[in-house]
Amino acid sequence: MLRDPLNDGKSRIELIDSMGSDLSIVNDARASFDKTSKELDEKDIKLINYLIKHQHTSPFRGVVFKFKVKAPLYICRQWWKHVIASNHSEEQLGWNEKSFRYVAIDDSNEFYVPHNFRQQSKNNKQSTEGVLSAELNNKAIAIYQAQCENSYQAYSQLLDLGVGREQARGVLIPSVYTSWVWTVSLQALLNFINLRLGVGAQTEIGAYASAIAELIQPIVPISMEAWSKHYLKGAEGTKSKPKIS
Amino acid sequence: MLRDPLNDGKSRIELIDSMGSDLSIVNDARASFDKTSKELDEKDIKLINYLIKHQHTSPFRGVVFKFKVKAPLYICRQWWKHVIASNHSEEQLGWNEKSFRYVAIDDSNEFYVPHNFRQQSKNNKQSTEGVLSAELNNKAIAIYQAQCENSYQAYSQLLDLGVGREQARGVLIPSVYTSWVWTVSLQALLNFINLRLGVGAQTEIGAYASAIAELIQPIVPISMEAWSKHYLKGAEGTKSKPKIS
Amino acid sequence: MLRDPLNDGKSRIELIDSMGSDLSIVNDARASFDKTSKELDEKDIKLINYLIKHQHTSPFRGVVFKFKVKAPLYICRQWWKHVIASNHSEEQLGWNEKSFRYVAIDDSNEFYVPHNFRQQSKNNKQSTEGVLSAELNNKAIAIYQAQCENSYQAYSQLLDLGVGREQARGVLIPSVYTSWVWTVSLQALLNFINLRLGVGAQTEIGAYASAIAELIQPIVPISMEAWSKHYLKGAEGTKSKPKIS
Amino acid sequence: MLRDPLNDGKSRIELIDSMGSDLSIVNDARASFDKTSKELDEKDIKLINYLIKHQHTSPFRGVVFKFKVKAPLYICRQWWKHVIASNHSEEQLGWNEKSFRYVAIDDSNEFYVPHNFRQQSKNNKQSTEGVLSAELNNKAIAIYQAQCENSYQAYSQLLDLGVGREQARGVLIPSVYTSWVWTVSLQALLNFINLRLGVGAQTEIGAYASAIAELIQPIVPISMEAWSKHYLKGAEGTKSKPKIS
Repeated sequence: MLRDPLNDGKSRIELIDSMGSDLSIVNDARASFDKTSKELDEKDIKLINYLIKHQHTSPFRGVVFKFKVKAPLYICRQWWKHVIASNHSEEQLGWNEKSFRYVAIDDSNEFYVPHNFRQQSKNNKQSTEGVLSAELNNKAIAIYQAQCENSYQAYSQLLDLGVGREQARGVLIPSVYTSWVWTVSLQALLNFINLRLGVGAQTEIGAYASAIAELIQPIVPISMEAWSKHYLKGAEGTKSKPKIS
Repeated sequence: MLRDPLNDGKSRIELIDSMGSDLSIVNDARASFDKTSKELDEKDIKLINYLIKHQHTSPFRGVVFKFKVKAPLYICRQWWKHVIASNHSEEQLGWNEKSFRYVAIDDSNEFYVPHNFRQQSKNNKQSTEGVLSAELNNKAIAIYQAQCENSYQAYSQLLDLGVGREQARGVLIPSVYTSWVWTVSLQALLNFINLRLGVGAQTEIGAYASAIAELIQPIVPISMEAWSKHYLKGAEGTKSKPKIS
Repeated sequence: MLRDPLNDGKSRIELIDSMGSDLSIVNDARASFDKTSKELDEKDIKLINYLIKHQHTSPFRGVVFKFKVKAPLYICRQWWKHVIASNHSEEQLGWNEKSFRYVAIDDSNEFYVPHNFRQQSKNNKQSTEGVLSAELNNKAIAIYQAQCENSYQAYSQLLDLGVGREQARGVLIPSVYTSWVWTVSLQALLNFINLRLGVGAQTEIGAYASAIAELIQPIVPISMEAWSKHYLKGAEGTKSKPKIS
Repeated sequence: MLRDPLNDGKSRIELIDSMGSDLSIVNDARASFDKTSKELDEKDIKLINYLIKHQHTSPFRGVVFKFKVKAPLYICRQWWKHVIASNHSEEQLGWNEKSFRYVAIDDSNEFYVPHNFRQQSKNNKQSTEGVLSAELNNKAIAIYQAQCENSYQAYSQLLDLGVGREQARGVLIPSVYTSWVWTVSLQALLNFINLRLGVGAQTEIGAYASAIAELIQPIVPISMEAWSKHYLKGAEGTKSKPKIS
């Protein structure tokens, strides 16, 4: 189960392991009541909807996913910022990331170059809206690509002079791809997806959030349906599914 | 996979689910290096030993276990205290516990009565050492059992008067059994076991820690062996395996 | 600044230290913008209201309080349960609690005995509603007090036999008072108060939540007003201020 | 209380608030014992040393600091990585950071350029050792500075084309300065300093760790002395104080 959210043949998100299911959620939630369901019935489905609607989501911590992600460094940073600043840092178990102190990049091709540049939003200081004209877009791509090339050249020259990787990476622009393994509970994931599919979220990270929603759907279909009903569709301020073309 | 740590036919700990293995630990740890092992080789085993010896245990967060536990309320409290006060609270994902506000106990038999009482330690203010003479032990058991009976009677009488469960439980002594589902990372578990098998830990909770070590051993045998070598055996201050007879 | 939430001359909550203010919240929130307010103006007050209304509460983590609390053991447990199961465990920095493994109680008077018993709710399985008649209430008090006495006697007898405190406490009913020091962020506190003043919360812990709201009000008056406006008053399902008489 | 750890007139770390002291540590630790010290005596100092030596550091969570930090983006990232991957994420309360989605940089001077480049270590894949010759160092500085200029030009041109800040920042090299407010417990700080003054840590972040140690010393002098004695000096693998000249 693999996606290429940025649609450039380089980006990647893969679900590599998981524990738990819709069924385990209801069984954990009923820990109090000494009953165990063997398969989901109507009552169980109602319970999942009730839990999500009323935000009693602690049983969603008992479902855990592990992803392997490859994304531009600045998207990775945005992801982290979420993890640290959110109320859910304790449900983000693992984060094992490639280090540019440890491995050098050896290919000027290892950068993300947007196909479509978006205009600065007038109303939302931290967001974008609309796209550039084809002509301006081509200019922007050229500038961006030249800067990837420049950055890689300066980086390589510093390494050739004998400069350590930990200092040389200071000139490596953050559209460079990095990768990490992320272990995370369903509770934290739903929160992540909510924020990242909301208005105001950057399209690129939204594309990863969409991919995550698709990847986990087969494992917790009832929970995802309940969550769509109560949050995603109902939420004012939720834009349609981000797409990177 | 089930144990009765307090050896009274009532206590229980069961491993109900898990994610990950020794192999996933080395693969997560090497996220940086873009290599994936399909099966454990000598190099992988060395890496696990290195990680444990140098306490680089963040890859151990990518292995997750779920337990169903039945234990006396005061042991449950001690367990929580560990979770809150430890440096590892963020790796204890789930805690779904029976609530005495929600369900009444309906059986005076639902208490833990120690078979063997231990003497107050002279040196360690919060610990015990040695056991009572058979005669004193029998007296202690009688007092303890009578108090279980008393407590249950007072509780039942309050319920009969119409008092709500949330207030009535104020007279329910904490040797009453409760149960919960615990979702937790391997990193946090190793820390839990270290503390609870150490000198100074209460024998009862040590018995649960021993059971946990046995239950997870088949899933992460190399990690448990490395951990035994570097911590358990080497640690001064680690007493032999707690046993409740 | 001290309160006796359970109104029995034994319970206690005291604010012993704090860091930050309404002003520090706006300055932290504007970290992005390189501006620092010296005193609160209209714009700052609007910002606080905006942050609370839209739940952008991460700047509320930069305000920290330390309380000394004395409460019945079962209320302490309920408090912890909140801390562990909530999304805010990472903002509950410190928890340093008295241990009954370490110190014995030496007074049969160290128990909480409710003045007024409430009836089991018909609709909410885990809650109470209405009070007992004076006659039944007096019977309940008598049973409860006798059980405090019984519990203390059994406990003392076990200690006299030489049983260690860590085992003897198994017969100490959880209406016994304990105490702890709690260090916690404003973000976590607001969440705690929201839950504990809501319908369904136990009156006793609600009384502590009310006391906390009063104790922190002079330190973050604007935040508390904004929070009252957007949450407390508006929230359906919020009952009036819990009072223990 | 302000430092310029990178010694370039741009970097900055400032202690802007704190709560607690050596005295509050011993009082919190003794929560169990119902005693309160008014001033530190010999017994209190012994207790602090005991707590640090035996790593019973939960009372160190009751001391909280708030820093304002200005550092290169890649150092900020390294800092975060610590926060997420460490066992202490729950003691890092607040993180409020400038966002390049929100504010543009408007000065090509807002980059960190090392004065001294270090050579890639032969033994430690992720570290450096020794410095470049003066001649090579001058070449490296020239390349680095040119790339700061390039990066800023490309960034400005993209903004001029109307590209949103959130995409344009993809070409902004991570030696660009950012700033944030950090609220953190003493327990987490000591762990941070330990790691960042150890062999293998990058000199630049070590310089911030040194500055932190100096800034908090006047507030918790006894704790810092105990920690120096038991950890810093004793630790094999701890290099001398990192200095950026």
